[in-house]
Amino acid sequence: MKTNGQNGAGELLRYEEVAAKIGGMIKNGTYRAGERVPSIRALSRQMRVSANTVMESYARLENLGMIEARPQSGYYVCSRLAEPAGLPASRERETDIAPNPVTIGDVALEVMRNIANPSLVPLGGGIPNCDLLPVDKLNRMLSSEARRFSLQSIAYPPHQGHKLLRTQIARRSLDSGCTLSSEDIIITSGCVEAVNLALQAVCRPGDTVAIGSPVYPTFLKSIQWMGLKVLEIPSNGKGMNLEVLDYAIRHNRVSACITIANFNNPLGSLMPEDKKRDLVALLAKQEIPLIEDDVYGDLAYGPSRPPSTKAFDENGLVLYCSSFSKTLAPGYRVGWIVPGRFKEKVAQLKVLLNIATASPTQLAIAEFLTNGGYDYHLRKIRRVYARQTALVRDTVVRFFPAGTRVSRPEGGYILWVELPEGFDAFKLYEAALREGIGIAPGTIFTLGDRYKNCFRLNAALWSERIEQALEILGGLAEEMKQYPIERPEKTLVSYVTY
Amino acid sequence: MKTNGQNGAGELLRYEEVAAKIGGMIKNGTYRAGERVPSIRALSRQMRVSANTVMESYARLENLGMIEARPQSGYYVCSRLAEPAGLPASRERETDIAPNPVTIGDVALEVMRNIANPSLVPLGGGIPNCDLLPVDKLNRMLSSEARRFSLQSIAYPPHQGHKLLRTQIARRSLDSGCTLSSEDIIITSGCVEAVNLALQAVCRPGDTVAIGSPVYPTFLKSIQWMGLKVLEIPSNGKGMNLEVLDYAIRHNRVSACITIANFNNPLGSLMPEDKKRDLVALLAKQEIPLIEDDVYGDLAYGPSRPPSTKAFDENGLVLYCSSFSKTLAPGYRVGWIVPGRFKEKVAQLKVLLNIATASPTQLAIAEFLTNGGYDYHLRKIRRVYARQTALVRDTVVRFFPAGTRVSRPEGGYILWVELPEGFDAFKLYEAALREGIGIAPGTIFTLGDRYKNCFRLNAALWSERIEQALEILGGLAEEMKQYPIERPEKTLVSYVTY
Repeated sequence: MKTNGQNGAGELLRYEEVAAKIGGMIKNGTYRAGERVPSIRALSRQMRVSANTVMESYARLENLGMIEARPQSGYYVCSRLAEPAGLPASRERETDIAPNPVTIGDVALEVMRNIANPSLVPLGGGIPNCDLLPVDKLNRMLSSEARRFSLQSIAYPPHQGHKLLRTQIARRSLDSGCTLSSEDIIITSGCVEAVNLALQAVCRPGDTVAIGSPVYPTFLKSIQWMGLKVLEIPSNGKGMNLEVLDYAIRHNRVSACITIANFNNPLGSLMPEDKKRDLVALLAKQEIPLIEDDVYGDLAYGPSRPPSTKAFDENGLVLYCSSFSKTLAPGYRVGWIVPGRFKEKVAQLKVLLNIATASPTQLAIAEFLTNGGYDYHLRKIRRVYARQTALVRDTVVRFFPAGTRVSRPEGGYILWVELPEGFDAFKLYEAALREGIGIAPGTIFTLGDRYKNCFRLNAALWSERIEQALEILGGLAEEMKQYPIERPEKTLVSYVTY
Repeated sequence: MKTNGQNGAGELLRYEEVAAKIGGMIKNGTYRAGERVPSIRALSRQMRVSANTVMESYARLENLGMIEARPQSGYYVCSRLAEPAGLPASRERETDIAPNPVTIGDVALEVMRNIANPSLVPLGGGIPNCDLLPVDKLNRMLSSEARRFSLQSIAYPPHQGHKLLRTQIARRSLDSGCTLSSEDIIITSGCVEAVNLALQAVCRPGDTVAIGSPVYPTFLKSIQWMGLKVLEIPSNGKGMNLEVLDYAIRHNRVSACITIANFNNPLGSLMPEDKKRDLVALLAKQEIPLIEDDVYGDLAYGPSRPPSTKAFDENGLVLYCSSFSKTLAPGYRVGWIVPGRFKEKVAQLKVLLNIATASPTQLAIAEFLTNGGYDYHLRKIRRVYARQTALVRDTVVRFFPAGTRVSRPEGGYILWVELPEGFDAFKLYEAALREGIGIAPGTIFTLGDRYKNCFRLNAALWSERIEQALEILGGLAEEMKQYPIERPEKTLVSYVTY
């Protein structure tokens, strides 16, 4: 029996009742996508509950991804009910935000290795679709450039990278809202190296890093290796919650912030332009460097790519990192960093680490950017990724238990799936492994106790095998509704995730 | 007037007198190369001085590289008077051996940058002679392998490196006394990356590393970056002084030892086989990992290359590092590490750092090792380096002040020059810079107060320009005998040494 009393238990039930009522009105169409739900004051009056209770209810509905708060405006019905809400801001705002020393559990490490096992149906990693890479053209250019620059391709490379390549990258930076010169750029062996250089340039062991959560696991590994502490900033379909970030950097000494603002891995989210500007400004106020990983930025489904946060950087505080691993050739290991005011430090670290990035692959990519039709190539693969991501998304909706939500990215090929609450995605991962299918369970994207009902899907590939695998996955999830699935024996194969 | 008294000042003069007398007898041929000089007891009786005085005299002659002690046998005239003695062991044995936190001075950093300025006559760096690299053949193989393995060359590379390459390296390991399998090897982006991975796998910030001194400056930079302390172990033409090392590791907690046992950079020294065995055994007793940089090992002038210290490793404690940067293609950035019992850790670090080394260059080098005539190529470049090193050596002897000593390496292309005591090689470096000539002054090879009269020469190249540069250098050194040279203004060009 329900009570109307002010004690804890009664309030708990009361707020659930309010949430259920408003949730029901959304479901039956009384409040529709994009519309405003009653204000806290109005609802508190209407339903004769305290303002606190209404706030709790709305937080609950936010968690469920049904409504969203808009600053100075109120709460609105989310336009795409099937999308996950990400980590709700309200739950963590002023309580859990304390830096954690990073210790990645053995289980998480094992997961990262397992899901990269090439014998699995590859839904767990972040690797691109190799069929979409311009294999022959690039390899031809590798040959022609090695002939053309025969000695330069063999001798020690320039530490900062070949100017030909840096110039091409600088020219293309206009597309992401920047106006770089070749001197601003340092070529790296992929984007992961770029991010590592950035972290090493701005942090010392023991420092704290703020980072959008769920977190790309490779970042967690770098952060752990460097002996840093981490503040996970809740994120949703529009990127990091800036209110939480603001709170976090005012209450902690934060040495750097890391973001994947464009087509986030794993959320698929795109941070709106205004929010990017706000993010850069917020950090600049406290002179906190922002490390941006923009490796998916060129894979926007729309006609043009979104700007990078670097586009709004007036103080040289953004260290922009990217690569050609998702668009041209992961095997070439060519990435770059635009380190802003940290250029000298990053340049020194690059030399110290491995002197320079190999020449032949740099020269081949420079030639592809110059004469290879990179824009045409991008348009082609963007279309394919848009189509395939939609296909995988629809297939998940078709086969998975009712209430499952899937992100709807506007670029890249990563999907984030939220099973209904109570589901254990780790058990699904284990059951999938036994069926020869790799997925990335949500728990590897955090150091905390989050995302247990979530997992990441790689939608880069589409085939009958993939469709079948998704059907099997869906079936396994349906089964989990009936009875819990036992853990399989430890898998010992060692591979690594991207 | 001299005194025969036992007081300090008298004894000092007395020991100099004895040293001068024996030194004179060596110079005038009374004692010839390889012959034994009188025992301490005999000389003390003959010259009516204390045994201590004779010991001091002999230490002085050792410092000058004129005689050398052989255990349980006595003192012998050095066979190659023109060679430097390296750091005399006696001076440091039990006094200076305490770990130093590493802080490379701005001056040293500036020197490292300056001497890599490509507009200088390149006598300062460690880069190989590009005319000796198989440019066309390698670039051809780069093309053919990219065609043959088209997709493999574009897709993410295997983290440990391509098996084709690892198998070739494993087969060749017989030449350096090892019997490796492809599984023992991890491909890296050059040897510098391999050494960094090794250091990171076995040390934590604050740990102490023992290293042969003079020290290859790139190691000092890595060690500083990792926040390690360093113990410089005096070395001579036969490598590190093991007595000092033994003392050092018994009196300090040492986490790793680093050696370039074959054709040391900068000493050019070759550690004898027995000494390698002793070094490995000495460290194994205390379970101290040995990091071996063998990047010059394949450049032995003799018909076969010397063994690596890894050949004597029975406990998996040697982390062997090398690359093809001195023999095939520095621009390809392909090296490797054999991490022994630290393999899992090193493999994880490599993935974390930059995922893997680029594929096309790995595949090209694998093909060169398989079908490119690597042994024939090595024989050819060994002959050239042997000839050129001798030429540069003779030219130094010809143009430099009397008493200048030059190392006589048996492999590689690095020479170590010792000007007569009192000369300031840093001033010579500065004067040389103004003449457009790069040399590496001894002071950048130590954190201590050593090698002030020494410098490193790169003998990889030979041309009229080089000969002229050496004549100018010799002239500058001769001038320095007359009057001190003023420091030039700060040079601001930024380049990096190897």
